[in-house]
Amino acid sequence: MKRYGFIGLGIMGQAMAGNLLKAGFALTIWNRTKSKCEPLVKQGASQGETPAEVVANSDITFAMVSDPAAAKELSFGKHGVLEGMTQAKGYIDVSTVDPNTTIEISQAVNEKGGRYLEAPVSGSKKPAEDGTLVFLCAGDHSLYEEAVPAFEFMGKKSFYLGETGFGARMKLVINMIMGTMMAGFAEGLSLGEKSGLKMNDILDVLDQGAIANAMFRLKGPMMVENSFSTAFPLKHMQKDMRLALHMGDENGQALYTAGAASFSYIKARSKGYDNEDFSAVLKAIRE
Amino acid sequence: MKRYGFIGLGIMGQAMAGNLLKAGFALTIWNRTKSKCEPLVKQGASQGETPAEVVANSDITFAMVSDPAAAKELSFGKHGVLEGMTQAKGYIDVSTVDPNTTIEISQAVNEKGGRYLEAPVSGSKKPAEDGTLVFLCAGDHSLYEEAVPAFEFMGKKSFYLGETGFGARMKLVINMIMGTMMAGFAEGLSLGEKSGLKMNDILDVLDQGAIANAMFRLKGPMMVENSFSTAFPLKHMQKDMRLALHMGDENGQALYTAGAASFSYIKARSKGYDNEDFSAVLKAIRE
Amino acid sequence: MKRYGFIGLGIMGQAMAGNLLKAGFALTIWNRTKSKCEPLVKQGASQGETPAEVVANSDITFAMVSDPAAAKELSFGKHGVLEGMTQAKGYIDVSTVDPNTTIEISQAVNEKGGRYLEAPVSGSKKPAEDGTLVFLCAGDHSLYEEAVPAFEFMGKKSFYLGETGFGARMKLVINMIMGTMMAGFAEGLSLGEKSGLKMNDILDVLDQGAIANAMFRLKGPMMVENSFSTAFPLKHMQKDMRLALHMGDENGQALYTAGAASFSYIKARSKGYDNEDFSAVLKAIRE
Amino acid sequence: MKRYGFIGLGIMGQAMAGNLLKAGFALTIWNRTKSKCEPLVKQGASQGETPAEVVANSDITFAMVSDPAAAKELSFGKHGVLEGMTQAKGYIDVSTVDPNTTIEISQAVNEKGGRYLEAPVSGSKKPAEDGTLVFLCAGDHSLYEEAVPAFEFMGKKSFYLGETGFGARMKLVINMIMGTMMAGFAEGLSLGEKSGLKMNDILDVLDQGAIANAMFRLKGPMMVENSFSTAFPLKHMQKDMRLALHMGDENGQALYTAGAASFSYIKARSKGYDNEDFSAVLKAIRE
Repeated sequence: MKRYGFIGLGIMGQAMAGNLLKAGFALTIWNRTKSKCEPLVKQGASQGETPAEVVANSDITFAMVSDPAAAKELSFGKHGVLEGMTQAKGYIDVSTVDPNTTIEISQAVNEKGGRYLEAPVSGSKKPAEDGTLVFLCAGDHSLYEEAVPAFEFMGKKSFYLGETGFGARMKLVINMIMGTMMAGFAEGLSLGEKSGLKMNDILDVLDQGAIANAMFRLKGPMMVENSFSTAFPLKHMQKDMRLALHMGDENGQALYTAGAASFSYIKARSKGYDNEDFSAVLKAIRE
Repeated sequence: MKRYGFIGLGIMGQAMAGNLLKAGFALTIWNRTKSKCEPLVKQGASQGETPAEVVANSDITFAMVSDPAAAKELSFGKHGVLEGMTQAKGYIDVSTVDPNTTIEISQAVNEKGGRYLEAPVSGSKKPAEDGTLVFLCAGDHSLYEEAVPAFEFMGKKSFYLGETGFGARMKLVINMIMGTMMAGFAEGLSLGEKSGLKMNDILDVLDQGAIANAMFRLKGPMMVENSFSTAFPLKHMQKDMRLALHMGDENGQALYTAGAASFSYIKARSKGYDNEDFSAVLKAIRE
Repeated sequence: MKRYGFIGLGIMGQAMAGNLLKAGFALTIWNRTKSKCEPLVKQGASQGETPAEVVANSDITFAMVSDPAAAKELSFGKHGVLEGMTQAKGYIDVSTVDPNTTIEISQAVNEKGGRYLEAPVSGSKKPAEDGTLVFLCAGDHSLYEEAVPAFEFMGKKSFYLGETGFGARMKLVINMIMGTMMAGFAEGLSLGEKSGLKMNDILDVLDQGAIANAMFRLKGPMMVENSFSTAFPLKHMQKDMRLALHMGDENGQALYTAGAASFSYIKARSKGYDNEDFSAVLKAIRE
Repeated sequence: MKRYGFIGLGIMGQAMAGNLLKAGFALTIWNRTKSKCEPLVKQGASQGETPAEVVANSDITFAMVSDPAAAKELSFGKHGVLEGMTQAKGYIDVSTVDPNTTIEISQAVNEKGGRYLEAPVSGSKKPAEDGTLVFLCAGDHSLYEEAVPAFEFMGKKSFYLGETGFGARMKLVINMIMGTMMAGFAEGLSLGEKSGLKMNDILDVLDQGAIANAMFRLKGPMMVENSFSTAFPLKHMQKDMRLALHMGDENGQALYTAGAASFSYIKARSKGYDNEDFSAVLKAIRE
């Protein structure tokens, strides 16, 4: 029976590891703040002393940390992932990091004889708990295939997108489209309101047509109420659009529309909406 | 029993009038090209000699014509709608026209003692046949209420949006959001492709997330195939965006994102894609 | 000796007609508010009773009015220009109007056997007084050649640009470039300021380089002082950009940069800067 | 008498060092390709063996290299500038580098007890030869004051802008304004041409007005001829705009107009105009 590791037990990691335990996976866990391990230990997880030990005890180790710096520290730091890495072991980073970081870690893992997969997720707390995440995987294909059963308990769908870097690229493309849609949506709502339409009527009409979607349905009513409680912070959307525009620059793709949208997020940040939901771009557009 | 009229039997009008007949409405019809009346006469419709006669014989008359010029000619022309209009009769224009045209016709109808409702539709051929159109109504409220049963047989939903002009404004806001979404979608597809992602993978990932929608699902695969068979002509989308930007100018709303999108439609027109589907904006963005 | 007429004695017209008198031209004048004729009558001008009379008494009549509506009323109204127009007389409109208005008046003049020249000016009060205006002429070429001596006393330069309509088009292209430059200049000043540079230093450096120009030199120091006393009202610049963007639409030219600039003028108008100088776009950009 | 050093004898450095020699400065020089030293040695310069030796033999050393990587190698490399640096010596980098590079070198120089000044130049070959460059200085103020006599022989003007980093920032602001102006100019030329105006007429009219400037005067006629012989390569302008947009992102300044312009340079690069003059953006805009 395969042994699994899970490192990083924040909101997302907690829920994801929990779903693996429920499905009967043998799991060794680790978290910087040790107390977060307790609920999972009660459900049957073993607790490792260090990331290196988790990796040493597991065939495949998942990691879910907050940003590129944390991902690097976890891999390259003392008692880190690389210290435990040996021939044929698998390391799957489900954090959202940039292509360069993921490529750097991938190479280090490969040099130790290990296998690497990046698998950033689409979805937040609720889908993590419900096991309906989407995994954007890229890197070692044999590792991907071995991990599919785990992905199936944690998510509703996984994609294999090619060599390391394509997971991060896919995430940026998707978020750029999402950010542009939101800016266009906000411009439409604000234009409608200023011309005398009721914003709720606009939402109702949109919801009957071919562009009806869950984001408009979920965020729209909150935007009408000027309530921007944060699901995805505006500053993160602006950062993702910056990285996507940078990809456009590198690949010779002019992005006039996404670019205009990104400036509205910058404007929103300069107004102090950094930590509100990204739908707060409406306020910058309306002013 | 109420008597109804229907003027304008193109692809849309044919299907809409057919649904009224199937539902048992007493219907007098007229079309410039008379032969198009035949199928409906076989289904039990009476045929009027002129628009004026249709209006004279009906309590409520619907009209579905191609553009503002045709709508004006139909109303103000010889033997036109206004000649048949008398006290309390209802005239419902379901064509897509600009706010100024609809207001002009409305005033002329009112001066004759008649009642006017604009009711542009969201949806094209298939929804017209299936009776799943959406009506964006504005103008005389009593007429709206009387027409609801007819709307229910022709569509899945009708909205009453206020005084004359708001139907046209709503349509422009909705189409501006749609046009901006399409431009953002096309930029994302082109960026992804140039950075090495497969366009079909992007579609699959989008379809799993919160921004999944029928337009991406329907048009996406055709865009991947470089096939732009026309559902909604690009030149019409560009025209609607022009009118929406004009509304922004009148109402003091800067529309940076929609504006950038609109230039990509202009670019696409200058490349000769006028009569292709509006998703052909992808070609202008990719080049 | 040729007889000249001058209609419309506002700030600009007063100065231009004065320069013709100083140069010894025989001049008949008219203004809606008659008192404005006095200073010029003292300098030797004859006063006509109506525009028609001025035209009847003159070989060539100049007109300088405020907008397209005034230009049409002056031509087509009672006792207007067209009533006095006969074979071979010349009518030169130096007002700034749109291409359609100028073409309409031109045709009416031609039907009376008269000759028409549009000649919108570049330059405001000071150049009008100093006789350093620039004339953007289009229409009847023989009339242009006959008018060159008059242009030389009123301005420093005249251009003949082709058939009627090209004067207006040239004016829009020039003002679109100017409006885009100003928006780019304002973005640079605001960016510099926010990154810790002194705005006056930016002005000094700009003034040493290849893009140094009179507009930056004149408006820059006022912008630094947040003083936007009006030379060219912001609402007029926004209107000219709207007309230029419309030309782009008609001619299949995407105008991404000028379009973005135009939205910043719309934003500035929505903030209430309509009647400040167009350099007040800085305030909308900085906020 | 003060001793000066000059490192980097490309087109620019050659001319600048030559002007110092003509003015009677005692000069030690160095260049990676030694043969380039010969003409200056004939004019009286001493030749150093290494950058370190030049610095050791000089009170103030100038450096003019091609990019940030070369600037770093020159400072931190073997026998580099830092090896020769001692208490109170001055090092003035007149290359164009980004703020981060200049700050890094500045700190290393200071740690050795030396003084650092960044002084990127505005102007290219001709002004370097004519001694009409403009220096955008920032860093050690005492060093700036000591160097003013040298700046006066190499240029027409020098600015002291504050602490290290402000020279680079100023350069980016200036070039962003220049790049936006050029894009607006190109849009105007293309719009004019498509609407039937002659491009040469547009240039003539522009040259009479308040926005007349040396760049339009110099580049305009070449653009009309579709000749884009390179003074400032398009890829460099695009890079400077990227860096300026990045400054906007860091400082919370939305740059809608400059951003739109920058995408037109990206489009031009994707068409293969990397090494043409930046005025070749016209081709991307016109297509």
